[in-house]
Amino acid sequence: MKRWVVLVHGGAGEINNLTPERERNCRQWLRKAVEEAASVLSVGGRSLDAVVAAVRILEDSGAFNAGRGSVRNRDGLVEMDAAVMDGASRCAGAVAAVSSLRNPVLAARLVAERSPHVLLVADGAEAFAFAHGADHVSPEYFCTPPFSNAEDTIGAVALDIYGNLAAATSTGGMARKLPGRVGDSPLIGAGTYADNRSCAVSTTGIGEYFIRTVAAYSVHARLLWAQLSLEQAARNVLEEVSSLGGSGGLIAVDAEGNSVALCTSPAMYRAIGTSDGHILTAIFRDEPWRAD
Amino acid sequence: MKRWVVLVHGGAGEINNLTPERERNCRQWLRKAVEEAASVLSVGGRSLDAVVAAVRILEDSGAFNAGRGSVRNRDGLVEMDAAVMDGASRCAGAVAAVSSLRNPVLAARLVAERSPHVLLVADGAEAFAFAHGADHVSPEYFCTPPFSNAEDTIGAVALDIYGNLAAATSTGGMARKLPGRVGDSPLIGAGTYADNRSCAVSTTGIGEYFIRTVAAYSVHARLLWAQLSLEQAARNVLEEVSSLGGSGGLIAVDAEGNSVALCTSPAMYRAIGTSDGHILTAIFRDEPWRAD
Repeated sequence: MKRWVVLVHGGAGEINNLTPERERNCRQWLRKAVEEAASVLSVGGRSLDAVVAAVRILEDSGAFNAGRGSVRNRDGLVEMDAAVMDGASRCAGAVAAVSSLRNPVLAARLVAERSPHVLLVADGAEAFAFAHGADHVSPEYFCTPPFSNAEDTIGAVALDIYGNLAAATSTGGMARKLPGRVGDSPLIGAGTYADNRSCAVSTTGIGEYFIRTVAAYSVHARLLWAQLSLEQAARNVLEEVSSLGGSGGLIAVDAEGNSVALCTSPAMYRAIGTSDGHILTAIFRDEPWRAD
Repeated sequence: MKRWVVLVHGGAGEINNLTPERERNCRQWLRKAVEEAASVLSVGGRSLDAVVAAVRILEDSGAFNAGRGSVRNRDGLVEMDAAVMDGASRCAGAVAAVSSLRNPVLAARLVAERSPHVLLVADGAEAFAFAHGADHVSPEYFCTPPFSNAEDTIGAVALDIYGNLAAATSTGGMARKLPGRVGDSPLIGAGTYADNRSCAVSTTGIGEYFIRTVAAYSVHARLLWAQLSLEQAARNVLEEVSSLGGSGGLIAVDAEGNSVALCTSPAMYRAIGTSDGHILTAIFRDEPWRAD
């Protein structure tokens, strides 16, 4: 059997209020997201289906800053962003500044597959998604307190047995952001990128720095043209983010199945699943992968 | 005196209805935009001020698909996008899906300089810009017929006497686009990028392909890591856009003052001004620069 790999993240940042209960809860959700992706990949499913399945689990969990767990903007409202990209075709879709979609990642996929466009925002994005059957939710659906601190994100990258790469990212964005603010997550090349010639990447952190450094595509460019390893390329990109004053992390997998999960912040919620049957999680920056 | 360079474009695409009168009118506006930028650069002004001044002229002209001349979306409404980037600091700002700002490029600059964010969209972008003094316009301000054909864009790139690069892009987007559709112009790395280490780039064409290829940043990456010349890097990026089925063009200037204006479509409205006093224009793909 050919190998497959999936990585997920639940955001990078400070470690605030990480009670043993929250730690256990987060590891369980990360594991469940990887299991969902693995159930696709292990039976010959495609990487795009796997990353969307994983991100959907995390959007619905309420445990991370995306989907149900999204933070509020300056006016106390939820505004979410998401993107997907298929490394085989380099087709991509994204939505930004949406408030009443249950699963922004599914709407992003609808944009990729059912519209001639890549990015739809605000009311137009919602109208398009609802017209294609997306689930609507009311403001009460969201479970975050009005003033939480996170600038987290969720994301997934995968390599399937056919050698196809895919990436998906979803977020509630920066807490107390200005209304209409869009971060890096839904921007192809900034927070999300996938290309069968190189790698699939999903980033997390203070989005503005990942936009200005075009971080996800920059990993691709360093692989393709600077002949760096995936890990060295990822390290260099995070150093460039740091050089501008930013911090965060990223997950990536390349076409050979090498993977990396790195952060410059104290923690990044993350998990990995592979075709050899392992599912491993980690939270703290230098923590080795854990099987429990 | 150290050299400076400015290039502007008024969009790439098919040549529909190019009457002698429209050709003369377009060349005059392109020339005026370059003159405006030159009046900044020739007295030691900064490249960021120059590109914003040039784009503002073209937004107000009504002759191109941006600002006053913006095309309508599927619902007959104008929705504009714009971005600016300063290659010295890599600060960037952008607005997207805005309908009642006279000068989206000025709003993009406000986002860069007066907010912690890079990209604001829709109502939130307008509220922010108006709170910072941006000019409001009513729907009657726009001069395009409800159904025009263009997917054009305007843009400018410049090198100032201090060696600083800057880029700005502004557009009404794709005619009959879905409401909320955002193209490449306001996306840092896709339609707009500037970095003193490499080059400043502004693209035009079918935006979705320039998003998927992260076109503007890809010119930078090929200069920095593949050691290509500016012209070869630009050619390779447009070939990659073509390989996915897209077409369009770009203008770019590098830190040594080399410049390029290339398109794969039949035409790209363009002009160049340099510190040796020349102002030249061109419209058709293989047309040499003209002084008249």
